[in-house]
Amino acid sequence: NAIADYRTFPLISPLASAASFASGVSVTWADGRVSPFHNLWLRDNCPCGDCVYEVTREQVFLVADVPEDIQVQAVTIGDDGRLVVQWDDGHASAYHPGWLRAHAYDAQSLAEREAARPHKHRWMQGLSLPVYDHGAVMQDDDTLLEWLLAVRDVGLTQLHGVPTEPGALIPLAKRISFIRESNFGVLFDVRSKADADSNAYTAFNLPLHTDLPTRELQPGLQFLHCLVNDATGGNSTFVDGFAIAEALRIEAPAAYRLLCETPVEFRNKDRHSDYRCTAPVIALDSSGEVREIRLANFLRAPFQMDAQRMPDYYLAYRRFIQMTREPRFCFTRRLEAGQLWCFDNRRVLHARDAFDPASGDRHFQGCYVDRDELLSRILVLQR
Amino acid sequence: NAIADYRTFPLISPLASAASFASGVSVTWADGRVSPFHNLWLRDNCPCGDCVYEVTREQVFLVADVPEDIQVQAVTIGDDGRLVVQWDDGHASAYHPGWLRAHAYDAQSLAEREAARPHKHRWMQGLSLPVYDHGAVMQDDDTLLEWLLAVRDVGLTQLHGVPTEPGALIPLAKRISFIRESNFGVLFDVRSKADADSNAYTAFNLPLHTDLPTRELQPGLQFLHCLVNDATGGNSTFVDGFAIAEALRIEAPAAYRLLCETPVEFRNKDRHSDYRCTAPVIALDSSGEVREIRLANFLRAPFQMDAQRMPDYYLAYRRFIQMTREPRFCFTRRLEAGQLWCFDNRRVLHARDAFDPASGDRHFQGCYVDRDELLSRILVLQR
Repeated sequence: NAIADYRTFPLISPLASAASFASGVSVTWADGRVSPFHNLWLRDNCPCGDCVYEVTREQVFLVADVPEDIQVQAVTIGDDGRLVVQWDDGHASAYHPGWLRAHAYDAQSLAEREAARPHKHRWMQGLSLPVYDHGAVMQDDDTLLEWLLAVRDVGLTQLHGVPTEPGALIPLAKRISFIRESNFGVLFDVRSKADADSNAYTAFNLPLHTDLPTRELQPGLQFLHCLVNDATGGNSTFVDGFAIAEALRIEAPAAYRLLCETPVEFRNKDRHSDYRCTAPVIALDSSGEVREIRLANFLRAPFQMDAQRMPDYYLAYRRFIQMTREPRFCFTRRLEAGQLWCFDNRRVLHARDAFDPASGDRHFQGCYVDRDELLSRILVLQR
Repeated sequence: NAIADYRTFPLISPLASAASFASGVSVTWADGRVSPFHNLWLRDNCPCGDCVYEVTREQVFLVADVPEDIQVQAVTIGDDGRLVVQWDDGHASAYHPGWLRAHAYDAQSLAEREAARPHKHRWMQGLSLPVYDHGAVMQDDDTLLEWLLAVRDVGLTQLHGVPTEPGALIPLAKRISFIRESNFGVLFDVRSKADADSNAYTAFNLPLHTDLPTRELQPGLQFLHCLVNDATGGNSTFVDGFAIAEALRIEAPAAYRLLCETPVEFRNKDRHSDYRCTAPVIALDSSGEVREIRLANFLRAPFQMDAQRMPDYYLAYRRFIQMTREPRFCFTRRLEAGQLWCFDNRRVLHARDAFDPASGDRHFQGCYVDRDELLSRILVLQR
């Protein structure tokens, strides 16, 4: 029976007993946990070959095709330890106890699963930077996984020993997945240009920001690869936006709420494009945790909101920007040739000091990879 | 003075008078409207060459760099009709009355702007399908714009006269922007395959669904291009998910709320990838309007939620799926060689009848383009 999944589910505890109730089956495990499973849920998750297509491991059964009051005729625990359900329409389903436990939705199981979610390690100026060797990441899957977990959980990493050839980012990004293209290209070159279409392509400083806040989905990862850095100035500074958001929540809760609740517009225009996105600076997920930071002061449209709210919003916005400059949050380092930054662009804000383009060459290349691709690659490497 | 914008702002009404108040400037227009502008807002939006870099049209001034209680020393209306503000720190700013009116945030101006937002044309089985000629779209920007507006506002369009060459989608998509790559490729081929890694690549029917609900950002547009369709069966059916959501809201409000409020997990796994996304089937924007539909029954993980909620959620989920099958919503048409569908994949659900692979060849190619790119292209074409 092909369960539509590429994982195996260890037997945490065998099934001790099972009994049907009005709209489902109640299971008691050998370790004492009790889990209810509703009839429609069980029927929907039947793993048999008629319900799931073995080749694609995708469901062909559709739960809307059985009566909503489908009944259990008999429920037993099989010799092989599976939960066996006979349905009133003649269909039979058998569920592996490891799989069933991994998907149980009693309160204890839900809480256990919630607690097991990876948590972000917030950091401030004293960050111990995760550094990896480019060659090891390219050749060794264990090192690759270690690096990607640091990207996911710390959000700022560095690789050393990177070839100083243009395009070296392409095979590296391919170790994760395809590159996310933007109007700036598949790879973008960061150097001072006379006819710049972005402040990034000038020599002046860039305040702490996330890239492409004008897109509905900001790029998940950003790579910045140093080919040459002989100009005076141009240090990189990073702050953990999640750490700042948390400090703001504690130190100025009203300002925090305004930044979470007020959508503001980001805009980026040039001769060929006109990108706009309206979203809050701090986005929360459904459980109230910070999911992302969206901020680039130089890509903001004029604020539009109820006039009563405007002055308070400005104070909250200024407060956040002032916090990004506080030494307690700032991690500063000069990137040298053959090194690269890889960071979570939806969490970690980055900045560049002004540099003197007359004092020497400075050439970086960058690219983006989406968060979906990072998480998928981690899950595959962990199989 | 370079305002950081590529649009011109017509003079809707000249300025009649201006007076400062404690924390801002109140403007009265010739047509009687009164608009308050706060000091920080005005200072933040100064368009002068010191505050905005003319080449990139991006702001270099940062509002956090002036005192929060910055004061207006004098405010006048210049001979050229601009609002001129002298600041207490010696800086001076001048604002064009067309620009100022377009960005005013008094209640009337905000309501006016809200009313001008493009609205979606919901449709049911009687849709008058927008059809365009491929050659005209490729050569003529006016036809291109007309087609893209139909994609944005109707969500389902067809092009005729498309070359039946593989890869013909690439130059067409380029009329909008770059293609969004996925694990299925830049272009994907839809035909029956023995070793399919998706139910799409089989000959059986696919129920109404959106593509890639396992990604945080579902692709905005989907193209499906018919190269050959000689097999029996395989008709395309479409429904407007926004029309169904609206009907559900009226006919079963409790079910509607459950689908809006309950995040469920979508999963897509194969040997090389493992994508997961947890989000509600119906997503609302900040003003409570439906923003997107996310649904592919064959890519669902087992539902996980509070056991009290599970049976009601199943009834709501079944109800939505049953509605997608109701004839009142279904628009069905067979796609012939040299035609293509282009539709809003975050709104319009699509389905395919089973076909008989022994009865003849069936070969489609598809690709995705993100919504950000569509909207940017429309704005540039409208300049």
